Amino acid sequence: MVNETQHPCSASSSSRSDGSSSGSESSKDNSRCSTPVLDADRHERLREKMRRRQDAGDKWFSLEFFPPRTANAAVNLISRFDRMGAGGPLFIDVTWHPAGDPGSDKETSSMIIANTAVNYCGLETILHMTCCNQTKDDITGHLQKAKRLGLKNIMALRGDPAGEEWEEEVDGFNYAVDLVKHIRNEFDDYFDVCVAGYPKGHPEAESYEADLRHLKEKVFAGADFIITQLFFRPETFLKFMKDCQAIGITCPIIPGIFPIQGYHSLRQLVKLSKLEVPQEIKDVIEPIKDNDAAIRSYGVELAVSMCRELLDSGMVHGLHFYTLNREVATTEVLKRLGIWKEDPRRPLPWAVSAHPKRRVEDVRPIFWASRPKSYIYRTQEWDDFPNGRWGNSSSPAFGELKDYYLFYLKSKSPREELLKMWGEELTGEESVFEVFTCYITGEPNRNGYKVTCMPWNDDPLATETNLLKDELEKVNRRGILTINSQPNINGKPSTDPIVGWGPSGGYVFQKAYLEFFTSSEIVTALLKVLKKYEQRVNYHIVNVKGQNITNAPDLQPNAVTWGIFPGREIIQPTVVDPVSFLSWKDEAFALWIEQWAKLYEEESPSRMIIQYIHDNYYLVNLVDNDFPLENCLWQVVEDTFELLN
Amino acid sequence: MVNETQHPCSASSSSRSDGSSSGSESSKDNSRCSTPVLDADRHERLREKMRRRQDAGDKWFSLEFFPPRTANAAVNLISRFDRMGAGGPLFIDVTWHPAGDPGSDKETSSMIIANTAVNYCGLETILHMTCCNQTKDDITGHLQKAKRLGLKNIMALRGDPAGEEWEEEVDGFNYAVDLVKHIRNEFDDYFDVCVAGYPKGHPEAESYEADLRHLKEKVFAGADFIITQLFFRPETFLKFMKDCQAIGITCPIIPGIFPIQGYHSLRQLVKLSKLEVPQEIKDVIEPIKDNDAAIRSYGVELAVSMCRELLDSGMVHGLHFYTLNREVATTEVLKRLGIWKEDPRRPLPWAVSAHPKRRVEDVRPIFWASRPKSYIYRTQEWDDFPNGRWGNSSSPAFGELKDYYLFYLKSKSPREELLKMWGEELTGEESVFEVFTCYITGEPNRNGYKVTCMPWNDDPLATETNLLKDELEKVNRRGILTINSQPNINGKPSTDPIVGWGPSGGYVFQKAYLEFFTSSEIVTALLKVLKKYEQRVNYHIVNVKGQNITNAPDLQPNAVTWGIFPGREIIQPTVVDPVSFLSWKDEAFALWIEQWAKLYEEESPSRMIIQYIHDNYYLVNLVDNDFPLENCLWQVVEDTFELLN
Repeated sequence: MVNETQHPCSASSSSRSDGSSSGSESSKDNSRCSTPVLDADRHERLREKMRRRQDAGDKWFSLEFFPPRTANAAVNLISRFDRMGAGGPLFIDVTWHPAGDPGSDKETSSMIIANTAVNYCGLETILHMTCCNQTKDDITGHLQKAKRLGLKNIMALRGDPAGEEWEEEVDGFNYAVDLVKHIRNEFDDYFDVCVAGYPKGHPEAESYEADLRHLKEKVFAGADFIITQLFFRPETFLKFMKDCQAIGITCPIIPGIFPIQGYHSLRQLVKLSKLEVPQEIKDVIEPIKDNDAAIRSYGVELAVSMCRELLDSGMVHGLHFYTLNREVATTEVLKRLGIWKEDPRRPLPWAVSAHPKRRVEDVRPIFWASRPKSYIYRTQEWDDFPNGRWGNSSSPAFGELKDYYLFYLKSKSPREELLKMWGEELTGEESVFEVFTCYITGEPNRNGYKVTCMPWNDDPLATETNLLKDELEKVNRRGILTINSQPNINGKPSTDPIVGWGPSGGYVFQKAYLEFFTSSEIVTALLKVLKKYEQRVNYHIVNVKGQNITNAPDLQPNAVTWGIFPGREIIQPTVVDPVSFLSWKDEAFALWIEQWAKLYEEESPSRMIIQYIHDNYYLVNLVDNDFPLENCLWQVVEDTFELLN
Repeated sequence: MVNETQHPCSASSSSRSDGSSSGSESSKDNSRCSTPVLDADRHERLREKMRRRQDAGDKWFSLEFFPPRTANAAVNLISRFDRMGAGGPLFIDVTWHPAGDPGSDKETSSMIIANTAVNYCGLETILHMTCCNQTKDDITGHLQKAKRLGLKNIMALRGDPAGEEWEEEVDGFNYAVDLVKHIRNEFDDYFDVCVAGYPKGHPEAESYEADLRHLKEKVFAGADFIITQLFFRPETFLKFMKDCQAIGITCPIIPGIFPIQGYHSLRQLVKLSKLEVPQEIKDVIEPIKDNDAAIRSYGVELAVSMCRELLDSGMVHGLHFYTLNREVATTEVLKRLGIWKEDPRRPLPWAVSAHPKRRVEDVRPIFWASRPKSYIYRTQEWDDFPNGRWGNSSSPAFGELKDYYLFYLKSKSPREELLKMWGEELTGEESVFEVFTCYITGEPNRNGYKVTCMPWNDDPLATETNLLKDELEKVNRRGILTINSQPNINGKPSTDPIVGWGPSGGYVFQKAYLEFFTSSEIVTALLKVLKKYEQRVNYHIVNVKGQNITNAPDLQPNAVTWGIFPGREIIQPTVVDPVSFLSWKDEAFALWIEQWAKLYEEESPSRMIIQYIHDNYYLVNLVDNDFPLENCLWQVVEDTFELLN
């Protein structure tokens, strides 16, 4: 009768004790999490997540990427992480390219791409690492750096010997198993370790059986699971899996799936991996080798049917995709298999980071809602993240944002596109109002270009903000330049497709919020109007010099998004915080200059218009505390315009 | 334009900075409270509270009590503290009786009565202390003990010399000023210090003027405010106050008000204080000296008119009442003056303790809702109190409750009364059901006695529980023996007279809660029914041996009362916590034996019935997570009875 559940804080199961000790003792030595576990995933390591999915009978997938060659390609890859991350991969992995300075701080290095995936895209990530031709110190250095960056998973590989005449080094890292042992010796159980399996045997192995024995050695040296090399027939994998089990390999074995995407990429991969393409596939492909679309379509069919067979076997719970950094084919296969999450549930209203230090983080200021990567960047040095209550944060200091051009923070659009959207030439403040208005309405600007991003928001309007579209359009036209807003919500189900977040069975709430830049003339009128709303509306009004006007009591944060869930404490993930608003203010004003003014020549009229706004406008935020009533903020703005007329 | 507000964490005012430093710095050195300040009072020391009330133009009162002579009188005095505390005194004070071992651990000592007032009744308390005829070490010891117990305020007095022939001791404590200096020397600014003022001059002073100079010395030695000896005419006090100000005494001076309550008490007090009763009062009293009611009525009139004159003078903001440990006269004066709080706003749904360590405490398990003093007792050794989130508590171990007979924990009713209420002789479990039912309905039991308390609740049914009266009656009749419950509330104003708490302008919420003892037969049926409600209802079911059945996820607490306030983080003062439920279980089961079974002879049938229930029943709690819907817990119980039939 006693209910036993898996404890989300640890791998061990902590059952309720039957006939337990007396209460006064049992309350001492409980192993309860100190944070509410809305999303059990966040508190598990990769091998636990894998096990839990398997126990629950949930099928999952993972995605492999290689580091890009150029900085621009890195920007694109990060957007791809965000888009493909939305489909719900259990993890992604980033390959290790010894020739590309993989452990360096370059924006194209394996290390930095993996770091970005974990910290800024919130993806569980495996970093590949090869050991051949490297010193112990090099390898330890890479692993230490990976740990420091919050990476928790390593794929331990031998790598290709550099020269033709490779010879074993005594005491060197000659095989992947040496790297596995080294990781376990030096880092104990910190990392989850993955190793490669070869369904056809490693090309250099003496035999298939010898290769299986090597694999077993790697597993027994401490690997947690196996990802296989690609293969072309499901029976190849299923036989391999049975053979592994027969010699005592019991850890998860994840098949590597390669959806054929083109004739040349197939040939190249086959050459590298020394595999042979089966005749039945060659027969189809050779005649259509110049028709990319046809090959891709065939590749998708083939992958779908192979994956189905694998999943139907009952032996396979997860599928690993070699994406070649492309989206279309893999996404299509996943959608057809029905394991791409069409409606990913948000664990919190903002994208959580996968850094282990941030596991407890469950409250953030609303200001960075559209700039989560910047928020993560500016708080990366925090020792503790606020948990439950913003005021508890013991490290409230924000790092300065000087690096507007870090590839994971910068606009996805090049300068020319931005100029088309925001105006090659501005004629006055009014033309700035127009840009804001076009961003809200989604209609083309006077030159026929749609405004799909703004300095404060690199993406089109959020679905939730769309609910406020008509009102936002009206106020932006008149110089209330909105950069952040949310409607009030009085207890919608947590599964609501637009405003929902967290597990099902809960209720979510919001206070209406509006944040905008506006002129001092409007601010003067607004302040008079706000007197009428003193009990109801909290405001913060600040200019670039830091002049600060507020009616917030005692520097307390105001919770503006919260959720009530079955069997949980209250979660309040978003607050309006008077103190961090001043840090946000610096960033919000700087974006006028860094992202907009600098598009124009110095001393040009356009640049001077933006500079004028930067120097003279105020940044305002308003919260309507009466969330059960109709949002009064539009009335506040209406009253302000009336007063001005 | 910049809003300046008093910071509730400190006496100094922390204005918003105009033209402040940049955000990244300002977020470092802010002096924001680490806890939300729902009730600024809790974070202020007495002298700050006094100042804030004065600045706001709020009139206030305080109440003086003396320690009782017997343990029974102590029980009564504590109930009086609870009742008179509800009227909203700014503080109470407890006099120091050198003859009564005032610093001891006896339940009638000044120290223990003051300790109880602070910790268990949540009252800001001043402990009197006299110094004459005591050694420095004695006094330091008393002060250290007071500090340890959480007392923050001392009234420093000389006290009456023990012998007739009192002589100054060299280096001894001869005057109150010596004690003030000692407190400041040894305890710095820890205590707020009060001293006595004599509107007619101290009877032993050389002159009125000399006495004023002594008073000034006491103030300049470090006293924070003055409470005066009683007086009979308002002009006596007003003249005294002006004379004080004239010689440079600027601290608050609080008039001591003595409502005449009887002929003899007046005579005695006058004798002790060496005051003279004015002729106009004597003229009224002498003819009616044997008519207590008439004298009290006159005393109330006199006090009301004097207080009105004092308050109308604009010089007086607070009134100090010499209660003589009686309620009626003082309460009547306060009600007629309009400063008795008729509808005291609850800062939180439970009574907060005034111990400085507990200032941040803002969440408790619901189980002790009717036994707050026991909760405070069992958590008195905690170093940190949970703040914002129950799971944050770093000291979750509950002390054992062995001392059921501590005077502040024990039932207010004597054994004979309890027997009348709960039955001189029980005939079976059914007669126990009847007792529970009579407690709920408020109707007399079969012997004609009303059941006004239960072992788990020393007071009649709370107004809030009354909302559930009909349903509770039905289920108790059938053996669901309820000891705690609350209705679901979906966003009522925080000013709601029944379920409201916290400052105005907020909204309060509750999940429906039901806690009861019941037989294993009913539990078996209940568990079957609960399967249908798996997503909706969380339950904990435990017997005295600790067998524990629950569907609570991950040992997480479930917030069952929370409030949303303007400009604040969410407050969730009450949780159902799986871990502390096991500590509560020990107490709840023990109360069957300690409070009920032990009323009967050993081996008597009545005692064996209670013992049987204690040994075999289960303690059950149920939470309906769907607070916006109609409470389903009654349906759960209904379904259970249907299944049993």
